Amino acid sequence: MNPRVAAIEPSLIRAIAAKKKPGMIDLGLGEPTLLPQQRFIDAAARWAAEHGVKYTVNAGDLGLRERIAAHYAYPGMSDARNAVVTTGSQEAVYVAIKTLLDPAKDELLIADPSFPAYAKMAQLEGVAFRHVHMRADEGFRYDAEAILDAVDRATRAIVVASPANPTGRVLHDAEARRLAEGLLARAGPPVWVLQDEIYRELTYVDDPGYVAKYYPHTVVANSLSKSNALTGMRIGWLLAPDGAAEALNKTHSYLTSTASAFGQRVAHEIFGEPGALTEQSAWYRRQLVDVTAALDESGLDYVPVDGAFYACVKLPRSTDSLAAALELVENRGVVAIPGRIFGDSLEGWLRLSWVAPIDELAEGLRRISAL
Amino acid sequence: MNPRVAAIEPSLIRAIAAKKKPGMIDLGLGEPTLLPQQRFIDAAARWAAEHGVKYTVNAGDLGLRERIAAHYAYPGMSDARNAVVTTGSQEAVYVAIKTLLDPAKDELLIADPSFPAYAKMAQLEGVAFRHVHMRADEGFRYDAEAILDAVDRATRAIVVASPANPTGRVLHDAEARRLAEGLLARAGPPVWVLQDEIYRELTYVDDPGYVAKYYPHTVVANSLSKSNALTGMRIGWLLAPDGAAEALNKTHSYLTSTASAFGQRVAHEIFGEPGALTEQSAWYRRQLVDVTAALDESGLDYVPVDGAFYACVKLPRSTDSLAAALELVENRGVVAIPGRIFGDSLEGWLRLSWVAPIDELAEGLRRISAL
Repeated sequence: MNPRVAAIEPSLIRAIAAKKKPGMIDLGLGEPTLLPQQRFIDAAARWAAEHGVKYTVNAGDLGLRERIAAHYAYPGMSDARNAVVTTGSQEAVYVAIKTLLDPAKDELLIADPSFPAYAKMAQLEGVAFRHVHMRADEGFRYDAEAILDAVDRATRAIVVASPANPTGRVLHDAEARRLAEGLLARAGPPVWVLQDEIYRELTYVDDPGYVAKYYPHTVVANSLSKSNALTGMRIGWLLAPDGAAEALNKTHSYLTSTASAFGQRVAHEIFGEPGALTEQSAWYRRQLVDVTAALDESGLDYVPVDGAFYACVKLPRSTDSLAAALELVENRGVVAIPGRIFGDSLEGWLRLSWVAPIDELAEGLRRISAL
Repeated sequence: MNPRVAAIEPSLIRAIAAKKKPGMIDLGLGEPTLLPQQRFIDAAARWAAEHGVKYTVNAGDLGLRERIAAHYAYPGMSDARNAVVTTGSQEAVYVAIKTLLDPAKDELLIADPSFPAYAKMAQLEGVAFRHVHMRADEGFRYDAEAILDAVDRATRAIVVASPANPTGRVLHDAEARRLAEGLLARAGPPVWVLQDEIYRELTYVDDPGYVAKYYPHTVVANSLSKSNALTGMRIGWLLAPDGAAEALNKTHSYLTSTASAFGQRVAHEIFGEPGALTEQSAWYRRQLVDVTAALDESGLDYVPVDGAFYACVKLPRSTDSLAAALELVENRGVVAIPGRIFGDSLEGWLRLSWVAPIDELAEGLRRISAL
């Protein structure tokens, strides 16, 4: 067997989730509680009745790729040929890491706190990786200078998630621009930026930054999972400049051949109806008002929520987030994710999902305050 | 970038297909021309309206995995925990190659003629591979002795597709048993058999062989793509013994997280209705009667069709299958796939898909005879 597979440690998120019992307050969820917009699923079912559900080309249905690329309209990647439709953003990120980096010599730099899958994917590919930590005393805001300072000669790609899971922080426009300028000013071969935009439609600040606007060596990953409550539809995509897009599609074509044609049709409908991609954002904005009130009332330190549907809270006394999460799930009826899963910089914190009913969140916060 | 990605040559099948013009006789198709059973898609759409389309666990919906594992009931892999639902059989095979073999020392043995993706996946993973050729003068029948003779000390997995793409040959029960006995008799660590059963429901002989019945170190890949005309639904699966299934699921969980929950629901419906998996087989059996008559009338040498929906025909004069395929598509209005794509042993042959209307197949055969 492949020793790299054996070396991957089991997911701690899943280990905590497995301890959940009925009736508990679940602040561990990584997906929306809303239902998807059924009209798009029904439209895809009608389309299937007429056309069947056949292979698309590897990169995905041409009409869908045109709509995706035109919608985001990033410079140098606004054509259908710049889009590759994938099995969720998970495959998108995996394909990017596998394609952009040479395991023999390249290194991936991960802006932390970060979703643990990035590092595990690199590990599975034998790609070296390093973390650059955003500062707790700055609320884990993205700091372009800190990222640039961490780039070294082996670094060939940087992964930045914005809005971020777990912190909910957003890379601001000025920081995206600064990151691009800094990378453009470097000598030597270009360093790719992989921006994971899966929470893009759940952004609550006015100046979100998109590196692809300023930097030609950017690859963007995104999906319908969070924006449209379609985690299980498994439709994601990569946007990339010419050349890179072809290479990414080649890797994708051997991993999964194509994304679901049914799911692609759902996406085609969504991208064809103005506003459909952001229709559910209003619910999150309303929820955030109550979430912020509950966080303030809890007296806990928390990270400002710029986007996504998470809030990170600091443990009031302990710094051992795993012990705290186990105490919560085993004795206090609350599922919460220990910060250490997302890197050393988030040790002492918990990640709470706030898609749960607000009363449950408030009660969960009270129990955490009492730890 | 990853030099292994750059080293993969573009697909010749796609290069030929790209030359297709409207009105041509297309004998290059790799998917059914039937429409899928719409009642299962509609049932899944109704289910989505009630339940949403959420993440399943990585390995796939428990109820679906129970049904799949119980349906095939292979010894040691008949429980839900032995099944991993994937994005088509493409991801299934990819995950198996990536998980079962150590790129540092293991070798994959491929029984040829074979679908080119196996070798390209191994190449993409840096896994050494070797081909063992079935004999043209035996109609490319699977020969267990030839496969066993080709196993050497580095061989850790053998891939056998039955029914086979491109040849349509089936591993017969006696050969499956012989292969199992031979491998069990070997000293040293076990050699995995990866049997690709994607054309299983399109089998026209009475004694098809399934290595998993006789050999505990077997991993089976399959999907709904060909049996139910659902190539675009991207629902496949792996069946594997305990231990291996866990490792396969771990790799799968980082590649794509989960297969489409919508597609999984379609599969759940299909596996829940006795006969639904083989409902379309009757059409292929009927078509094969006419196909055989057309092949006989053509006067061309052809490989006996045990399964799948392909017929391999020998070029009447030339041995250059690529030149013949180009002549056919450029000057004679026929799309056919050159045999050399599937390995040296099929050079001098063409692979024809016979899901096209029978008159078109007959006319295509006449034009090939005239080459």
